[in-house]
Amino acid sequence: MTETDIERDVDEAQTAALELAKLSDGDRSAALREIADAIEARTDEILTENETDVEEGERLLEEGEYTQALVDRLKLSESKIESIAEMVRSVAEQEDPLGKTLAARELDEDLELYKVAVPIGVVGTVFESRPDALVQIAALALKSGNAVILKGGSEALHSNRILFEIIEEAAADAGIPDGWAQHVEAREDIDALLEMDDAIDLLMPRGSSAFVSYIQDNTSIPVLGHTEGICHVYVDDEADLSMAEDIAYDAKVQYPAVCNAVETLLVHEDVADAFLPAIADRYETAGVEIRGDEATREIVDVAAATEADWDTEYGDLVVSIRVVDSLETAIDHVTTHGSKHTESIVTEDADRASTFMRSIDSASVFHNASTRFADGYRFGLGAEVGISTGKIHARGPVGLEGLTTYKYHLEGDGQLVATYAGEDARPFSHEELDAEWSPGRLSDE
Amino acid sequence: MTETDIERDVDEAQTAALELAKLSDGDRSAALREIADAIEARTDEILTENETDVEEGERLLEEGEYTQALVDRLKLSESKIESIAEMVRSVAEQEDPLGKTLAARELDEDLELYKVAVPIGVVGTVFESRPDALVQIAALALKSGNAVILKGGSEALHSNRILFEIIEEAAADAGIPDGWAQHVEAREDIDALLEMDDAIDLLMPRGSSAFVSYIQDNTSIPVLGHTEGICHVYVDDEADLSMAEDIAYDAKVQYPAVCNAVETLLVHEDVADAFLPAIADRYETAGVEIRGDEATREIVDVAAATEADWDTEYGDLVVSIRVVDSLETAIDHVTTHGSKHTESIVTEDADRASTFMRSIDSASVFHNASTRFADGYRFGLGAEVGISTGKIHARGPVGLEGLTTYKYHLEGDGQLVATYAGEDARPFSHEELDAEWSPGRLSDE
Repeated sequence: MTETDIERDVDEAQTAALELAKLSDGDRSAALREIADAIEARTDEILTENETDVEEGERLLEEGEYTQALVDRLKLSESKIESIAEMVRSVAEQEDPLGKTLAARELDEDLELYKVAVPIGVVGTVFESRPDALVQIAALALKSGNAVILKGGSEALHSNRILFEIIEEAAADAGIPDGWAQHVEAREDIDALLEMDDAIDLLMPRGSSAFVSYIQDNTSIPVLGHTEGICHVYVDDEADLSMAEDIAYDAKVQYPAVCNAVETLLVHEDVADAFLPAIADRYETAGVEIRGDEATREIVDVAAATEADWDTEYGDLVVSIRVVDSLETAIDHVTTHGSKHTESIVTEDADRASTFMRSIDSASVFHNASTRFADGYRFGLGAEVGISTGKIHARGPVGLEGLTTYKYHLEGDGQLVATYAGEDARPFSHEELDAEWSPGRLSDE
Repeated sequence: MTETDIERDVDEAQTAALELAKLSDGDRSAALREIADAIEARTDEILTENETDVEEGERLLEEGEYTQALVDRLKLSESKIESIAEMVRSVAEQEDPLGKTLAARELDEDLELYKVAVPIGVVGTVFESRPDALVQIAALALKSGNAVILKGGSEALHSNRILFEIIEEAAADAGIPDGWAQHVEAREDIDALLEMDDAIDLLMPRGSSAFVSYIQDNTSIPVLGHTEGICHVYVDDEADLSMAEDIAYDAKVQYPAVCNAVETLLVHEDVADAFLPAIADRYETAGVEIRGDEATREIVDVAAATEADWDTEYGDLVVSIRVVDSLETAIDHVTTHGSKHTESIVTEDADRASTFMRSIDSASVFHNASTRFADGYRFGLGAEVGISTGKIHARGPVGLEGLTTYKYHLEGDGQLVATYAGEDARPFSHEELDAEWSPGRLSDE
C-alpha cells in the first residue's frame, strides 16, 4: 500500500502532536511571538504573493466568477499584516488552556486521581478565503498544543503559501516539533481528510452552512462548527417596548451578515399594535425589508411572509415578523424553526423569562439583550475558536478550551484492584482534593 | 412522505426531551424511586417473561448457537431483580447533574452571562443482552433529563419488554412526560437510527469493539463508547519489582475479560532478569498463557509472541510480554499498538513517571497502580454511563456529567451590541462572578 502525500502529512502531524503536548505554555507562546515578528519582518514578501492572488481575483471578477466582496476580503495591506501579527501576539497572551487540573480526588490513602487538561491531538481545518484565517487558526492550534491540518480557500493560495512558510520556519526556529502544521492545497484532499478518522481527532470547517453540513454528513470524525443561525427575538406582552424596539433593531441592523443576527421577530398579540408601527418605521429607515404574517400586515403595511421565511437565514437586511398569541406559541415557533443558535426574550416578567430560557434548546438564550452578544469576544472567552451549533463537547461561542480534552492521571503506591473487591473489600474514600497534579506528588510527601 | 414507526418514536422522544429538561431533580429522582418500587412489586411478571427468554436461550444453546455464558447473563432471579431496583435507587441518590452554573461572568454592569448544565436531549442506546442493562440505561437517562431510545439484544426481548413496560408506567404515574423512553425491538431499526442525525444527539453503543466501530463508521451522530482496550503495564528499570509483580498480576488476573485488564507487559531490559521469572511463575500458577518476544524467551520458557499479539485484546487469561531497551521504546510501543484506553508505569522515579504520563495519549495513565482502577465507580464518578475511547466530549470512564451539555443564559437590561462597537465602544468588564443563574436575577436586585 503506498501512502499518499496527504496521508504522510497527517501521519507527521500525529507524531508532532505527541511532542507538542509536552511543551510548556512558555515554549508555545514564545513561538507565537516569533511567528508574529516574522510576519512583520516579511511583510514585503507577503504583499507580493498576495498581489498574485488579488490579480487573479480581479481577473475572475471581470469574468463574473468572483464577487467584489471576495476580492476585497483577499486583499492585504501593510496595516492589515500588522494587525495579523498583533492578533498572534494576543493569542500568545491568553491564559494557558493546558495542564490545568480540572478535578482531583483522593480514592484512598496515597491513591490520587487527577483530571488534567490536554490538547485534543490533530485538528483538521477547512476555512474561507481570508489570508488572516490561516494565521489565526494556526495560532489557536499552537497555543492549545494541537497539531493542525490547514486547508484554505484556493483564491488565497499564494498568500496562504507564504504565510504558512513563515509560520513553519519561525515555529521551527523556536523549537516547535516539525510537522505540527500541515498546509493542504488541493480541494480533492478534503475528501481524503474526511476518511482519516484514525488520525484526525476533530474537524473544524468554516464557510457556508451547506459546506459545514457536507462535512458533517461525510465523516465520522467529530465536527466543531456551525451551520445555520436562524435567531429569534420574542417581544413578550410584559416587555418594555422601548427596550424591545432597541434590541430588535440592534439584533438585525448592527451587522446583518453574521450568524447571530436576528431573522425572525415574534411579537405577542397584546403589544403588537403598540410595538409594530414603531419598529417597522425604524427598520424601513435603515433599509430593512420586512416580511410579516397576516396579523402583522393588519397593523403595518409590509410584504407577506411565506412558510419558507420562518426557516430562512437571510444574512442580510431582511426580517420576518410573526404575531403570536402566547409565550408558548413563541417557544413552539422557535423549537420548530430555530437552529439552536441564539434567541432572546424581552420581558419585565422574570417567570416568563425563565420559562422561555428553560424551554428552548439553543446554545445561547438571552433575557433583555441583543442576540448579537453571542460571540466569544463579547462572552469574555478570549480568542474565539468558532461557534458550535452541535451539542456535544462544545456549544455556542467556543474559546481555546474547545481545543482541549482531558486525561486521567492516577498516582498510586502499588495499589491493586483485588484489595477493593470481593468480601473484605477495602472501601474507597473518594474525597475531593484541592491539589494540582505534579509528577511523583506522593513520593515528595 | 409517510413516517415510519421508528421516526415517530424518535419524534416523540424529541418532544418529550424538551419537557423533561424543565423538571426538577426532585421530580426525576422521585420517578426513579417509583420505578424501583414497581420493579420489585412486579417481580413475578418479570421472572415469567425472563423464563421465556431463558428457555429460548437454552434451546439455542443446545443447537450450538448460544454460549452458556450468554444464557447465564440472561437469567434473572428474585435477588437479581432486587439488586436492579437498588441500582435504580442509587442512581436517584446521585447528585443532580443538571442546573448547575458551571461558570458565571459579568460582561458589564447588569449584563451577566451564565453557563448552565443541561441535558443533551435525545440519546440513542444499543446494548448487550443483559436485562439489567435496559433498566440501568433508562435510569441514567432519566436522572440526567435525557430522552432515550433503548435497543437491547433480541435474546432478552421478553425480559426487556416487561421491564420497559414497568418503567414506562411508573414514570408516567410520577408525571414524567410520555415518550421520554422508547423501546426499539428490530435489529433493522438500528440502521434507521444511525441516519437520524437531526433528532438524536448522542449514540451510546455497547458491545463488541467491532459493533461499536460499525456504529462509528456509519453515522454522523456523535458516538460515546469504547472500542478496544489494549492496555499496557510498563515495568521501568527504577521499578520496585515486588510492586510491579503485584500490579502486573492484578491487572491481568483479577478480571481478565474486561477492557481495562492489561494485555501487554513492557519490561525494561535492566530488570528483565530479575522480574520475568517471578511474574511468569505467578501467571502460570493462575493459568495465564504467556507469549513473549525473543528477549523474554531467553529468560523464561514461554510461547513466542507474533507481531499480531501486540495489537490484540485477548480479554482472557493471555498476556504478551516484550523487553524494551528504554522508557522511550516503551512509550513508542504504547503509541503504536495501544488503543488510548489505560496504561500504567511502575517506577520509583518521578521524572520518568512524568515523562510516561505526559507522552502517552491515553484516557487514563497511571503511576504505580493497576490498570483495573480505570472505572467510573473506582474513580468516584458515581453512576457510570460508559467508557469512552474517543477524545471529544468525554474521555475514559464517564459519569452522569457525560450525559449533559451546557447552555449560555445571558441576563441583561436592554443592552445593545452597538454600544460596545465602533469608535466610542464601551468596554466590557469581563469579571468572573461567584453566582448561580436564577431567573430574573437582575430585577430582584
